[in-house]
Amino acid sequence: MDDADLSGYRIAQEPHYRAQGDEITLFEAAWRTRMPMLLKGPTGCGKTRFVEHMAWRLGRPLITVSCHEDLTAGDLAGRWLLEDDSTHWQDGPLTMAARHGAICYLDEVVEARQDTTVLIHPLADTRRQFTLDRKGEVLTAHPDFMLVVSYNPGYQSLSKDLKTSTRQRFAAIDFDYLAPQQEAEVVATESGVSPDMAQRLVALGERTRRLRGHGLEEGASTRMLIHAGALIAGGIAPTLACRTAITAPLADGEDMRLALSQAIDALL
Amino acid sequence: MDDADLSGYRIAQEPHYRAQGDEITLFEAAWRTRMPMLLKGPTGCGKTRFVEHMAWRLGRPLITVSCHEDLTAGDLAGRWLLEDDSTHWQDGPLTMAARHGAICYLDEVVEARQDTTVLIHPLADTRRQFTLDRKGEVLTAHPDFMLVVSYNPGYQSLSKDLKTSTRQRFAAIDFDYLAPQQEAEVVATESGVSPDMAQRLVALGERTRRLRGHGLEEGASTRMLIHAGALIAGGIAPTLACRTAITAPLADGEDMRLALSQAIDALL
Amino acid sequence: MDDADLSGYRIAQEPHYRAQGDEITLFEAAWRTRMPMLLKGPTGCGKTRFVEHMAWRLGRPLITVSCHEDLTAGDLAGRWLLEDDSTHWQDGPLTMAARHGAICYLDEVVEARQDTTVLIHPLADTRRQFTLDRKGEVLTAHPDFMLVVSYNPGYQSLSKDLKTSTRQRFAAIDFDYLAPQQEAEVVATESGVSPDMAQRLVALGERTRRLRGHGLEEGASTRMLIHAGALIAGGIAPTLACRTAITAPLADGEDMRLALSQAIDALL
Amino acid sequence: MDDADLSGYRIAQEPHYRAQGDEITLFEAAWRTRMPMLLKGPTGCGKTRFVEHMAWRLGRPLITVSCHEDLTAGDLAGRWLLEDDSTHWQDGPLTMAARHGAICYLDEVVEARQDTTVLIHPLADTRRQFTLDRKGEVLTAHPDFMLVVSYNPGYQSLSKDLKTSTRQRFAAIDFDYLAPQQEAEVVATESGVSPDMAQRLVALGERTRRLRGHGLEEGASTRMLIHAGALIAGGIAPTLACRTAITAPLADGEDMRLALSQAIDALL
Amino acid sequence: MDDADLSGYRIAQEPHYRAQGDEITLFEAAWRTRMPMLLKGPTGCGKTRFVEHMAWRLGRPLITVSCHEDLTAGDLAGRWLLEDDSTHWQDGPLTMAARHGAICYLDEVVEARQDTTVLIHPLADTRRQFTLDRKGEVLTAHPDFMLVVSYNPGYQSLSKDLKTSTRQRFAAIDFDYLAPQQEAEVVATESGVSPDMAQRLVALGERTRRLRGHGLEEGASTRMLIHAGALIAGGIAPTLACRTAITAPLADGEDMRLALSQAIDALL
Amino acid sequence: MDDADLSGYRIAQEPHYRAQGDEITLFEAAWRTRMPMLLKGPTGCGKTRFVEHMAWRLGRPLITVSCHEDLTAGDLAGRWLLEDDSTHWQDGPLTMAARHGAICYLDEVVEARQDTTVLIHPLADTRRQFTLDRKGEVLTAHPDFMLVVSYNPGYQSLSKDLKTSTRQRFAAIDFDYLAPQQEAEVVATESGVSPDMAQRLVALGERTRRLRGHGLEEGASTRMLIHAGALIAGGIAPTLACRTAITAPLADGEDMRLALSQAIDALL
Repeated sequence: MDDADLSGYRIAQEPHYRAQGDEITLFEAAWRTRMPMLLKGPTGCGKTRFVEHMAWRLGRPLITVSCHEDLTAGDLAGRWLLEDDSTHWQDGPLTMAARHGAICYLDEVVEARQDTTVLIHPLADTRRQFTLDRKGEVLTAHPDFMLVVSYNPGYQSLSKDLKTSTRQRFAAIDFDYLAPQQEAEVVATESGVSPDMAQRLVALGERTRRLRGHGLEEGASTRMLIHAGALIAGGIAPTLACRTAITAPLADGEDMRLALSQAIDALL
Repeated sequence: MDDADLSGYRIAQEPHYRAQGDEITLFEAAWRTRMPMLLKGPTGCGKTRFVEHMAWRLGRPLITVSCHEDLTAGDLAGRWLLEDDSTHWQDGPLTMAARHGAICYLDEVVEARQDTTVLIHPLADTRRQFTLDRKGEVLTAHPDFMLVVSYNPGYQSLSKDLKTSTRQRFAAIDFDYLAPQQEAEVVATESGVSPDMAQRLVALGERTRRLRGHGLEEGASTRMLIHAGALIAGGIAPTLACRTAITAPLADGEDMRLALSQAIDALL
Repeated sequence: MDDADLSGYRIAQEPHYRAQGDEITLFEAAWRTRMPMLLKGPTGCGKTRFVEHMAWRLGRPLITVSCHEDLTAGDLAGRWLLEDDSTHWQDGPLTMAARHGAICYLDEVVEARQDTTVLIHPLADTRRQFTLDRKGEVLTAHPDFMLVVSYNPGYQSLSKDLKTSTRQRFAAIDFDYLAPQQEAEVVATESGVSPDMAQRLVALGERTRRLRGHGLEEGASTRMLIHAGALIAGGIAPTLACRTAITAPLADGEDMRLALSQAIDALL
Repeated sequence: MDDADLSGYRIAQEPHYRAQGDEITLFEAAWRTRMPMLLKGPTGCGKTRFVEHMAWRLGRPLITVSCHEDLTAGDLAGRWLLEDDSTHWQDGPLTMAARHGAICYLDEVVEARQDTTVLIHPLADTRRQFTLDRKGEVLTAHPDFMLVVSYNPGYQSLSKDLKTSTRQRFAAIDFDYLAPQQEAEVVATESGVSPDMAQRLVALGERTRRLRGHGLEEGASTRMLIHAGALIAGGIAPTLACRTAITAPLADGEDMRLALSQAIDALL
Repeated sequence: MDDADLSGYRIAQEPHYRAQGDEITLFEAAWRTRMPMLLKGPTGCGKTRFVEHMAWRLGRPLITVSCHEDLTAGDLAGRWLLEDDSTHWQDGPLTMAARHGAICYLDEVVEARQDTTVLIHPLADTRRQFTLDRKGEVLTAHPDFMLVVSYNPGYQSLSKDLKTSTRQRFAAIDFDYLAPQQEAEVVATESGVSPDMAQRLVALGERTRRLRGHGLEEGASTRMLIHAGALIAGGIAPTLACRTAITAPLADGEDMRLALSQAIDALL
Repeated sequence: MDDADLSGYRIAQEPHYRAQGDEITLFEAAWRTRMPMLLKGPTGCGKTRFVEHMAWRLGRPLITVSCHEDLTAGDLAGRWLLEDDSTHWQDGPLTMAARHGAICYLDEVVEARQDTTVLIHPLADTRRQFTLDRKGEVLTAHPDFMLVVSYNPGYQSLSKDLKTSTRQRFAAIDFDYLAPQQEAEVVATESGVSPDMAQRLVALGERTRRLRGHGLEEGASTRMLIHAGALIAGGIAPTLACRTAITAPLADGEDMRLALSQAIDALL
C-alpha cells in the first residue's frame, strides 16, 4: 500500500473551524518537528473539528480512532487474517498512519486500555518507532507521521488519569467553549435560527455551564444548542425545543430539571 | 446488499400507537436533520412501540438491538466469517443500518459495554461516520440513517449511568405511562375485558406505581394489566388473575405481597 | 429442520403430577395467549415436573435449559460450526424452541448472565421476535412457542435478583411443598416405604423446613424424603437412612446436625 | 463407542479398602436406585479409595474428575474437535460416564465453577438427563450411570460452599480418619515399619489432628504417616523422617514447628 | 534465522549519550559476565538512550520491548502461526534475542503481567535457559545474550513493585536527570534555542522537579524542555511555549497550573 | 516419543552442589518410593541447583517449569495442535515427565493457578495417574516419574499459601543460605575475588539478611554476592560494586539505601 491508499482518509473540503486563540499557530509549530500533541478540553468544544481542520490545512490524511475500554494494542497495531488458506497481515489504524505518514488522532485516549498507551510511547519520543510484535517488524514512522491525542480532564476518575510517562511525551493545547459572540454565529449558521434566538440559546448554554460541578457533570455543548436551534427552525416551540435538546438529555433528577426549566423560561 | 435487503426490517403494517403528547411532531422535526434521539422512560410505557410506529410513519426500515452487558462493539459493527476456505465480512446491525439508511434503535443502551457507546459517538455528531477497524473501512452513514437509543433513568446504578459525552450528542423525549382513560382503552382492546374491568385494572396499576421507591422498583406496566385482563377474559377469577399477573411477578416479600393483595381486594 | 425434528423433545408418557391448586388451569389460560410464565418456589417442590406435565398435557415439545453463571446469549441463540471447510449455523435451544413452536423452559433463570435475560425480552413481549445477531436473522416466534422460566426467591442475593424489566414481561405462579397427606402419598409411591413410614418422613421434612432461616437455607425437599424412604426400603435402618439422606447433605456444622438428629430420633 | 471402550476406566484389581462403618452397605443400597451420593470428609481419609473400591465391587467403570476453579461445563460435557477438515464431537468425562453407564466421581466438586454444578442437576434428579447444548443432544443417562461427588466441609470458605439446590439432590456419607488400631495396621503394611513404630506414628497423627483449628488447617493424614514410615524404613532417623514428612509440609511458622517437634520428640 | 537476521535490530549510528557517572564502565563490566542489569530512574532521564548507546558500543543488536499490562509470556516467547495449511513457529522478541545473542531490553518491566517476569527468571540466573512450553524446546541462551530491564521506582504502587525473586537476579544502575550545565547543552543542541534560553528552561525544569510529591507525580523531563525550546525556536513566545510544552501536559488542576505559570513568568 | 526423546532434559555434567545437611540422603530415600517432594526456602539458596544435582545423581531427565499466575492446567498437560489440516496432540511438560519417567520440577508452585495444583493431586498420591481430559486419556505415571515442587514460605500472601490438600501429598525439605565459610568459598570460586574479599562480601550478605522483615523482604542471596564479586574482579571499586549488585536492586527508599551503604562502608 502506498500513500495513495490513504486517500479515503484525506479531507477533501475545508472543515469550518473558528480559532479560539493561538491553537493553529501552535499546532503548525508543533507539526514542524512532528511533536506529539495532546488536545485538552470538555466534550463538544471542537477538538475533533480542530484536528480535522489542521489535517486539511497541512494536507495530510487523518486517521481517527475513538478509544474505549476494550481497545487493545492489537486493534491499533494490526492483526493476521486468514484468507484462502493462508494468512496475511492487516495494518491497524496506528500502524497505517505511522507507515504512510498520516496524522493519527486517538480520541479520548485515557479510555483505552493501558497497553495501548504504552504502545504509543516509542512512537512519541525521539525513536519514532514501534515494534509489531506479532509481525516481527520494527516500524520506523514515516517522516510525516504525527500523533495527536485528546483528553477531557473534567471528569476523569483516578483510574482514568493520563499516566505521567505518557504526559511527558506530549505538548498540549487547552480548548474551551467559543466566546459568546462566536458561538452565537455558529449556532445561527448551523441551525438556521435568527441571530437573536442564537444569542438567547448561547446565554442559556452559559447558564448551564455554570452548573458544572453543582449537579451537572458538564453544561450544554455548542452541539446541544444547535440541536435546540434546529428544532426551533423546524417549527417546534422554543421552550419545548430546549427541553428536548438540553434538559431531557442532560438531567434525570427533578431538581435539576426544574432549575433548567426556569433558566429556559427566563431566557427564551 | 442494496436497500432492498433490508426488507426484512421494514414494518409492513401500522403499529398501533397512541400519542402521549408532542412526541410524534418532535420526532419528525428531529428526523428532518437526522438528529440522534434518546427515548427516556419506565419499562413498558411504549418506547419500543413508538419507534416502530415512527419507522412505519417515515417509511424507513428499523433495526433494533436489545443491549446487554456482553454486547461488544464487534457485535454491533460486524465480523469476519470463514466460509469455503476464505473469509467474508458480515455487517453487524449498526453497520447495516448506517450503510443502507435504516433507523437503528439501541434499546437500553446503558446496558451495553462502554466500547459500544463510544462506537456510536462519531455516528452521533456531525461526522456521521464510523470506522470499521477490523475491515479497514471508514463508513459515512447513508443520508437516511438515524440513531435512536432508549434509557430508563428510574433504576440506573451509578455504573450504569449514561456518560456525559454520550448525552451531549442526543436530544431526548420523555415517556411516561398513558393517561388513565387512554390506558383503560388499550387494556380493554388488547385483553378483551369490559371497559369497567379495564378501568379497575388501570386504577390498580396506578396504585402500584405509587409504591415505586417504597418497596417496588417499578409499578405494574400496561403490559401487566393486559396480562391480568387476558387471564380474566380466559375465565380466571379477577383476584387470582391479578395475583398471577401483577403480585407474584412484581413482589417476593410477604409485606409487599400483602399490600398488593389488599389493593386488589379493594379495587376488583 | 421441521417440527418432527423436535421429536426428541416430546414427552411420550404422562409425567405424574399432583396439582397443588389452580396452577394447571392458570397455565392453560396463559397458554391460550402464549403469555410468558414465571414459576416461583423452593428447590424440589415440583416446578420442573409441572412444566413437563403441562408440555405433555398441551402436546408440545419441551426444551429445558438449566441456567448457570456462564450461560451466554450465544449458548441460547446458536452458533456457527465449521464442517467440511464451510460453516453452518446451529440453532441454540431457545432459537430451536422459538422457530419450531416448543415450550422453552429456562430453569433458574437468574443464574444466567445478564445478556441472556435481555435476549428473552423481545420474545416475551408483543413482538415475540428475536434477532440472531451473528446470523443476521430476525426470527418471529412460531405461534405455539411459549416461554417459561423458574426462579427461587428464597435465597437470592441482591446481585441475583430478577431484573424489574424482566419481571414486567411475565405472569407468575407460586409453588410450595405439597400438603402433608399428598406428600406422604408421593413418598410412599416413589420410595416403596409403608404409608406410616412415609407420614413420619413427611413430618420430619416439615420439621426441617421450619429451620429455614435459622441455620438452614432450605428444609428437606420431597426428593430428600424419597431418598430416605428408598434407603429404608433397601434395608437400611430408618435413623441411618435419614442421617444419610437428610442430615449429612443438608448440614455441615455440629449444632445443626445435632438438632436434626434429635428430630429424627423423635419422629422415626 | 460401546461399553468396551470404557475398559481403560475399569478397575482390574480389588483396591484395598478397610471399612470405617456402614458405608459399603449404604453405598450398595444407594446404588440400587442409582441415588446420587456425596462423600464428605477431610483430605486423605479414604474417600477416593472408597469410590474405587465400590466401583470394583459393583463391577462398573469409574471415571474420576479432579475439580478445580477453571473446570468448565464444557470440560465435563465435551467439545468439537477439528480433524481432517471436519469436526467431530468428543465426549467429556461426565458425558462418557452417563452415556455408557460408568460411575462418575467428581472429586472436590465445590472447587469447580458454578456452571458445572448446574450441569449435574438434571443428571442428579429423576430426569437423569442432560443436554449437550453444543451438540444439540438430549442425553438420557445409561441405567448403570451413577454420580458421586466429594466435599471437604472442614475448610470451605463461604464462596466455596455447596449450593443448597445441589445438596438437595444428594444423599451423603460422612468419612473420618481410621480408628487408631486400623490406621496403624495400614501404616505398617504400606510403609514397611514395625507395628510398634506404626502405632507411635498414628499417635503422632492424632496429636496433630487435635491442633486443627488451633494453627493447623488439618492434621496429618494417614498418607503423611505412611510417608514418615517409608522414610524410616528407608534408613532415615525417625525424628528426621517425621520432620520431613509431617512438620515441614504442614507448618511454615516457627511456633507451630516447635509444637510439632516437641510432639515428635515425646512420641518417637 | 542466523545472526544476520537481526540486522534490523543493529544500531548503525552512535546514539548520542552523555554519561552521568560510571554507568558506561559499570555496564561494560556487567557485560563481561553477561550479568542481568536493571536500570532505575524517572521517565525521560535517558535509560532508553543509554541502552541504545551501549548496544552500539558493544556492537550487539538491541531488541526493545515496551512492557504493558497485557503483555503475556506468549508475546515474549513466541507463537505458532498458521500458514498455507500448516503451522510454523515464530520466535517472540525475547526468544529471538536469547537465540541469536542480542541485548534484550524490557522497558518498564513491572508493567508486564507476572508470567513474563517469571519467564525471565531462568534466563537471569546461572541457567541462562528458558523453556518454550508451547514449542517443547529448552533454549540455552546464546553466549552474547544479555538481559536489561528498566524500572521507575518513583511512582510504583504496591501491586506494581518489582518482585523480590526478580530483584535478586539483577544488578542495578541508578539514573537521574542530567546535571544543569549538561542538560542545558542538550536542550540547546536538540531544540535550537540559544544557550541562555536553554539555561532558563533547565532552571524551570528543576523548579518543577522540586514539586514532585507536592502535587506533581514527576517534574518536567529533559524531553519536555526540548519541546518548549523547539516551539520557541519555531517562533512561539517563550511563555506560551512553556505553557504548551510543560504546564498543559503536566497539570490539570488550577492551583498547580498557577504555580507553574508563576515559575514560567519568573524564569523566562 | 520414547525415553531417548527426553535427552534434551538430561543433565550431562555434574552440577556443583554443596550439601547443607541431610538433604541428599533424604531425597534419595524419598526417591526409592517416588515420594513427592516439596523444597522450601528463600530465593537463591540453591533449591533449583539441588534438584538439578539430584537429577544428575539419580540419572533421570529433569523437566523444570517456572510457575506463574497465568500457568494453566492446559499448559502443563498439553494441547492439540493443528498441522497439515489435521490435529495432533502435544504433551505438556508434566505429561511428558509422567509418561517417560522424568523428574518434574514445578518451581514456585504457589504462583500457578489453582487448576494446576489440583491437576497434580492424583499424580501425587497412590494413584500416580492423571487424566488428560482434552485427549480422553488416563495416564498412569512411568515407574521413574517423580514430582518435586518448590515454595518460598517467606513472603507468601494468604492468597498464595499452599493449599492444605496439596501439602498433605508431599514430604518437605527445608533449605537455607549456606554456612558462612561455605558461602565464602562459593563466592570466591564463582566470582574470582580473593578469599578475604569473599568473606567480607558474605559478612555483608548476613548483615542484609538480618534486615529481613525490617524494611527488606529478603536479604542478599549468594547470587548477589557473586554479582558484587564479579564486578570487583572486573575492576570496579568494591563500594560501587556492592551498591550496584546489592543496594540498588534490593532497595528503593532512601532510608534503606543509607542503611545498606553504611554496612558496605563498614565491611569493605
